[in-house]
Amino acid sequence: MLGKIILEEAFALPRLEEKTKWWAGMFSTDAEKHTREIQDLTDIRLKFADQYGVGYTILSYTAPGVQDIFDPKEAHALAVEINDYVAEQIKPFPDRLGAFATLSMHDPNEAAEELRRTVTKYGFKGALINDTQRAGTDGEDYIFYDQPEWDVFWKTLTDLDVPLYLHPRNPTGIVFEKLWKDRQWLIGPPLSFAVGVSLHALGMVTNGVFDRHPKAQVILGHLGEHIPFDMWRINHWFEDRKKLLKPGLDCKKTIREYFNENFWITTSGHFSTTTLNFVKDEVSADRILFSVDYPFETFEDGCTWFDNAEMNTGDRLKIGRENAKGLFKLGEYKDSSAKAI
Amino acid sequence: MLGKIILEEAFALPRLEEKTKWWAGMFSTDAEKHTREIQDLTDIRLKFADQYGVGYTILSYTAPGVQDIFDPKEAHALAVEINDYVAEQIKPFPDRLGAFATLSMHDPNEAAEELRRTVTKYGFKGALINDTQRAGTDGEDYIFYDQPEWDVFWKTLTDLDVPLYLHPRNPTGIVFEKLWKDRQWLIGPPLSFAVGVSLHALGMVTNGVFDRHPKAQVILGHLGEHIPFDMWRINHWFEDRKKLLKPGLDCKKTIREYFNENFWITTSGHFSTTTLNFVKDEVSADRILFSVDYPFETFEDGCTWFDNAEMNTGDRLKIGRENAKGLFKLGEYKDSSAKAI
Amino acid sequence: MLGKIILEEAFALPRLEEKTKWWAGMFSTDAEKHTREIQDLTDIRLKFADQYGVGYTILSYTAPGVQDIFDPKEAHALAVEINDYVAEQIKPFPDRLGAFATLSMHDPNEAAEELRRTVTKYGFKGALINDTQRAGTDGEDYIFYDQPEWDVFWKTLTDLDVPLYLHPRNPTGIVFEKLWKDRQWLIGPPLSFAVGVSLHALGMVTNGVFDRHPKAQVILGHLGEHIPFDMWRINHWFEDRKKLLKPGLDCKKTIREYFNENFWITTSGHFSTTTLNFVKDEVSADRILFSVDYPFETFEDGCTWFDNAEMNTGDRLKIGRENAKGLFKLGEYKDSSAKAI
Amino acid sequence: MLGKIILEEAFALPRLEEKTKWWAGMFSTDAEKHTREIQDLTDIRLKFADQYGVGYTILSYTAPGVQDIFDPKEAHALAVEINDYVAEQIKPFPDRLGAFATLSMHDPNEAAEELRRTVTKYGFKGALINDTQRAGTDGEDYIFYDQPEWDVFWKTLTDLDVPLYLHPRNPTGIVFEKLWKDRQWLIGPPLSFAVGVSLHALGMVTNGVFDRHPKAQVILGHLGEHIPFDMWRINHWFEDRKKLLKPGLDCKKTIREYFNENFWITTSGHFSTTTLNFVKDEVSADRILFSVDYPFETFEDGCTWFDNAEMNTGDRLKIGRENAKGLFKLGEYKDSSAKAI
Repeated sequence: MLGKIILEEAFALPRLEEKTKWWAGMFSTDAEKHTREIQDLTDIRLKFADQYGVGYTILSYTAPGVQDIFDPKEAHALAVEINDYVAEQIKPFPDRLGAFATLSMHDPNEAAEELRRTVTKYGFKGALINDTQRAGTDGEDYIFYDQPEWDVFWKTLTDLDVPLYLHPRNPTGIVFEKLWKDRQWLIGPPLSFAVGVSLHALGMVTNGVFDRHPKAQVILGHLGEHIPFDMWRINHWFEDRKKLLKPGLDCKKTIREYFNENFWITTSGHFSTTTLNFVKDEVSADRILFSVDYPFETFEDGCTWFDNAEMNTGDRLKIGRENAKGLFKLGEYKDSSAKAI
Repeated sequence: MLGKIILEEAFALPRLEEKTKWWAGMFSTDAEKHTREIQDLTDIRLKFADQYGVGYTILSYTAPGVQDIFDPKEAHALAVEINDYVAEQIKPFPDRLGAFATLSMHDPNEAAEELRRTVTKYGFKGALINDTQRAGTDGEDYIFYDQPEWDVFWKTLTDLDVPLYLHPRNPTGIVFEKLWKDRQWLIGPPLSFAVGVSLHALGMVTNGVFDRHPKAQVILGHLGEHIPFDMWRINHWFEDRKKLLKPGLDCKKTIREYFNENFWITTSGHFSTTTLNFVKDEVSADRILFSVDYPFETFEDGCTWFDNAEMNTGDRLKIGRENAKGLFKLGEYKDSSAKAI
Repeated sequence: MLGKIILEEAFALPRLEEKTKWWAGMFSTDAEKHTREIQDLTDIRLKFADQYGVGYTILSYTAPGVQDIFDPKEAHALAVEINDYVAEQIKPFPDRLGAFATLSMHDPNEAAEELRRTVTKYGFKGALINDTQRAGTDGEDYIFYDQPEWDVFWKTLTDLDVPLYLHPRNPTGIVFEKLWKDRQWLIGPPLSFAVGVSLHALGMVTNGVFDRHPKAQVILGHLGEHIPFDMWRINHWFEDRKKLLKPGLDCKKTIREYFNENFWITTSGHFSTTTLNFVKDEVSADRILFSVDYPFETFEDGCTWFDNAEMNTGDRLKIGRENAKGLFKLGEYKDSSAKAI
Repeated sequence: MLGKIILEEAFALPRLEEKTKWWAGMFSTDAEKHTREIQDLTDIRLKFADQYGVGYTILSYTAPGVQDIFDPKEAHALAVEINDYVAEQIKPFPDRLGAFATLSMHDPNEAAEELRRTVTKYGFKGALINDTQRAGTDGEDYIFYDQPEWDVFWKTLTDLDVPLYLHPRNPTGIVFEKLWKDRQWLIGPPLSFAVGVSLHALGMVTNGVFDRHPKAQVILGHLGEHIPFDMWRINHWFEDRKKLLKPGLDCKKTIREYFNENFWITTSGHFSTTTLNFVKDEVSADRILFSVDYPFETFEDGCTWFDNAEMNTGDRLKIGRENAKGLFKLGEYKDSSAKAI
């Protein structure tokens, strides 16, 4: 399929090359190649895009990124630097490349302002946040955005009419020590990513974010970070608790309604047709967006899978391109091969 | 369907009635009724079983149970008391009721010995453990059974040829404070149960438990605690890591092979046909077992769902009864209505 | 769910009551009740609709109807009588009842004209045809509408921008004698309906109807009359033949594209969530429409199933109501309970 | 996966080479290649088998074969010739090749005797019949094996404990003229095959073959020739008719029970994972057998699909090999790579 749109696609800052290489060494056999690919924003990337039928890419700063920096000033300065950098880089390719804002999430007002600045000044497509913000003098605190003080941020997001991509970050500090240290192969894609994001996303539901901001849009990667699997079970428990306990859980809608109105799910890093079909059952093809997760995954794996996956034509078009065009208002996006699959 | 077998079915000790009531008050509108039901082992329970076509029930001590007691001596004493108690209670109903051993998991040898005692003396059908064992003077440590010192326990389990049911327990201590306190509606069935058990079960895989004990059998409830959802993603990551990184993850088989040879999945508390069908795709109907999770769920919800779920006849018989007969060697189990569905 | 729309809902003419009763006696235990229900257009029917949350019903004359009459004049006269009759009956209920035109299909021009008359004069929502038109002096010929002489009919249909519901009719004459006589329990829903309609619908595809009339819309009942099951196999065979054989099959698009652009599928008489999910995979929830098939099926069976079927919120709204609102331009349709499920 | 077993694999007689070529010209671009492949029983075929991991192949005479010959004597003579020929050819490869008997189906006793002869003398694995037997002086009659006079045949089949593969044959004579002539691209895999076999197989059900011969085993190709798609609908109609009408349909079990006890389904020519998953839901992985349909399909298409299809390990082993080993008693079959996937 030509003209695909992808949106969980990472880049890194060249000035932090040493750190990027060290990090790459932990999961990649070819840290040099990974570093080259993640630091490239326009050359290698657009060649792959041409080769594999990707029309438009939304870039985001690699995890854990700013969410790992527990000094608020340092975090904000880095976010601003990243945003200015990526805006400059993608400027010559308005038909091919967009970006999500990187935000320090220490202060709701500051985060809202930087989001507003990047969306209005640079045309950013929303923000991508790497789960909770580490905070505290020892980095042992975690800021969740499901608390009332974050309403200003959610209001700005919905005023600007852009989505928030809730991306994973790895376990740190005491939680790492107590639970993950001796099972480190489960950190990242096999388990910890979904554990963190599920808690945060469902916390937004139960703490009323979407009741107070019914137009807020949150994107989850990796086919939904486990939540679609438990849609029935969550609904059963929530609705029973709502009916039975007073005072009890009082979010206003059902979990299925929030997933129909406030969440989007991407295929990043989860190239399984069986699971995709299941997610379509639980969440609807109208809320699913193709994505790769490059350079942690390859264009080849992601695009070859999607282009050849058994799928009806309507769902392929929606998931591959049309849903994203609607969500990110890419109607103007020139797609000369719109019918090609 | 008549003659169904169920195996995640909780009881409590009458002498701890006050604690049971207090606990029930946190999630049940009728704490009195819940307490009555969970303290009853044979009367209310067998009436429901008759009414809803359940032939055989395997009882287990309610969570968090002994795994919440961080004093080793106290934990072991309570486990022994529970085992002797349930053995006595079910004695008159050998065709209807069995039990899983309750074990203190502070000391691998002690746990292995109590398992051996209850299986050989009382004919217990295996053990049900509520996730990690809280330990340490302040209860802030967690013992996982995926470390080498637990080989003696796994060896005993496979020598006795009985399975381990890995049941959830809730987050406690610092982990609770940091992550769950402000999103308490996610504790239990909606999220925390699966988070805990997934980490522990997959830790057993990556730490080689099933390579060292290829006949070990572990049962997961709630349609698999999220793991089936990520079977592709886990496999993709594990196999890539195994191929790419030296030294790297070195468990010998694929995740799909471990789930084909070492894991069983029950329907406890997750009465969704769409999800069940997906789990059949990812794990095979040969490894799925019907269960209710009474009295946290009702016989009516569980059995009415299963009996009316769209399903082929062969899978219904396997999931409802035949798989369990094989796993627990209930061939002798008198089932006069074996053909009835 | 309130406000559901249904569209394979049969009525009969009171003046043919004896024939209706005789016919009902062949498949119904209570021929009196069936006759009463099928002859009622507004009273019993709207009471059921109120009771089971149906907002809008599109009525059609019961099968085999006019397609069984091999005298062209007699067939046309009956069609006109039926159309005038139903138009009169439903007139007082414009927000609740619509109709499909009944057409004699002996002559393409005549059929086109009667369609135009009923759509423009009465606001009919399209036509429902009971498969092939029996013809010839002995009724042993079958007229298919996939031949070039029917272009005038298809052009009228697309000019009027209304769909054709291709409903089944039973095997007759020699075909009945040779194949069906000794296996009469397979006539109707279990097999013959799908056999007839599949041949006709796929004949339209291979004979180029949708290439010449790319806006033509055909509705199939019963979850698609078997075709979704073979989407892969049909596609495999068609695309291979197109590539390999010269001259060969030359319809321009793939079978998946025709099903994305020219076909709609209803749930009439096929209340299976497992099959519905499969059809969603093969055809997309955007092309599926809820329907009952009353009074051959009951409102209770159809609506209770749909309202309780495990389904995401978006797909339920689309299948239950929104897709039909779009297809039949029922935007003006007053649905005060649009959000209710 | 190594050691796969396949069972809808056609051969032709070299002495009919001209007819084979003419026939091949109707659907194949390379009639020479097709003729070479279908006339080869051991050389090309076993090279492909080695290349694509097929351990054991059951051969059958190509359709329409003997079922197209309406002279009984000619039909029987050809059947015997075919059986003796294939028995001789495969003799040197007992670990790699088996055969289904070809039978003239004009006379139940004669068919039963030839089946007995080939199973007891040559070790044939059952019979493969190409749907109804054409009969009558003009070939316009069709013999179905669902009538009481065929009990002797079914008894022999169950006495010998071998299955019947009910393979398709194309529409002929008047039925062809009336229905298929103007839509010839639907003849064969896209539609007519399933239409014919479904009628015959369900006729066996409704006419009581499996009530009188509860151990009879019938194999259907192409993922079940549409029947799994309608399992709910058939069941709904049959069970309602059984309950409601007196006298009515009186086959003793439900359609789901017959498919659990009397039918097997192969993947021949239908290499779709989405459909396979659906068939597993409706019929159980325990009754599904991998097959290719060579040389009408290629080893490459069939085996590459199956080996790479997303599937759990247990189901892959059962469908790829273990179910067939059980059905055909191939326990002795040397499979040195039994564990390899």
